[in-house]
Amino acid sequence: MEIMQVMGSLVCTNRVEGFAHQNLRILRTPKGKLSVAVDPVGASAGNWVFTASGSAARFACGDPDTHTDLTIAGIIDFWERDG
Amino acid sequence: MEIMQVMGSLVCTNRVEGFAHQNLRILRTPKGKLSVAVDPVGASAGNWVFTASGSAARFACGDPDTHTDLTIAGIIDFWERDG
Amino acid sequence: MEIMQVMGSLVCTNRVEGFAHQNLRILRTPKGKLSVAVDPVGASAGNWVFTASGSAARFACGDPDTHTDLTIAGIIDFWERDG
Amino acid sequence: MEIMQVMGSLVCTNRVEGFAHQNLRILRTPKGKLSVAVDPVGASAGNWVFTASGSAARFACGDPDTHTDLTIAGIIDFWERDG
Amino acid sequence: MEIMQVMGSLVCTNRVEGFAHQNLRILRTPKGKLSVAVDPVGASAGNWVFTASGSAARFACGDPDTHTDLTIAGIIDFWERDG
Repeated sequence: MEIMQVMGSLVCTNRVEGFAHQNLRILRTPKGKLSVAVDPVGASAGNWVFTASGSAARFACGDPDTHTDLTIAGIIDFWERDG
Repeated sequence: MEIMQVMGSLVCTNRVEGFAHQNLRILRTPKGKLSVAVDPVGASAGNWVFTASGSAARFACGDPDTHTDLTIAGIIDFWERDG
Repeated sequence: MEIMQVMGSLVCTNRVEGFAHQNLRILRTPKGKLSVAVDPVGASAGNWVFTASGSAARFACGDPDTHTDLTIAGIIDFWERDG
Repeated sequence: MEIMQVMGSLVCTNRVEGFAHQNLRILRTPKGKLSVAVDPVGASAGNWVFTASGSAARFACGDPDTHTDLTIAGIIDFWERDG
Repeated sequence: MEIMQVMGSLVCTNRVEGFAHQNLRILRTPKGKLSVAVDPVGASAGNWVFTASGSAARFACGDPDTHTDLTIAGIIDFWERDG
């Protein structure tokens, strides 16, 4: 899974059925690349999140009829070095 | 999903059956890389769109017998920072 | 799908069964990276083609027992800007 | 599979169900890119591991209801040139 | 499929069950990136091979219970420009 930051929301009136009921979020990687993800956890702008991609994204979003390839899987509190 | 801009249409007389009835679109990423996508939403040249890739692309295009790995999933109206 | 150019053929006597009956083609991306693809359309060296990757590659090649991750899906005649 | 080094653990209180019972690890590629993986082998910080990605990650982690796209598949002892 | 060169073998005592009975090979791309692959063809160090990735890797290795995302699919004898 990748680490990305939530930037905002995407407004798309004309979209395929597989995204009909989904809130689409703009995410940014640490290197600045923007992506679009489905958000089942309710992240806010500025949050750092981890994302599931590929077929895992469909399962992770909780609705297998959502045809996403990127889903926010959790909001990062912090990470720590072990030991 | 990725954010790309529609450039035009691809003309391919000789193609495999899985793409027989599909309009093929040329898309460009913000960095200039060209890709080919199936377009079930009817995007126009110049439109910014978001795309589903991998197995999600087949489901998103509405016809599971289309063997695409990239599908235009929606036309972007705009995006906004939350809050 | 990606846009690539056909360079030639790959000769591999020792290969897994999933590629037993396949003609393997060498393709080059516009940036010069070489890849290997299955070719169900009969492209010639110098042709520009579009390719399906991932699980779509298996469906596109017409034989689901071919374990390819890249298949030539069509020969590009030309592309044109809409409108 | 990729070669990565374990850096530590990710703390995420708010996460989707598919990751409910999983220890999430921060991994670093040789080029410094950070990723998040599920760890069924019990790797420690500093360990070099190899990782399975894509749909293989779900099978490798031993629980098909884990919606991961990256799983630590083994701890590397060493590698050697053949012959 | 990608073109890579075999460098040697990976020794991993602690690994998940999906790789229990597999010989793991270290491969290098032409740009120098190292990857790990399952080898059902018996390639030797120095051999140039082509590899199947993603879900194709599981089918190509001949044992669907191997949770690989990269499999050596054949040893390259040579490649030639057509015509």
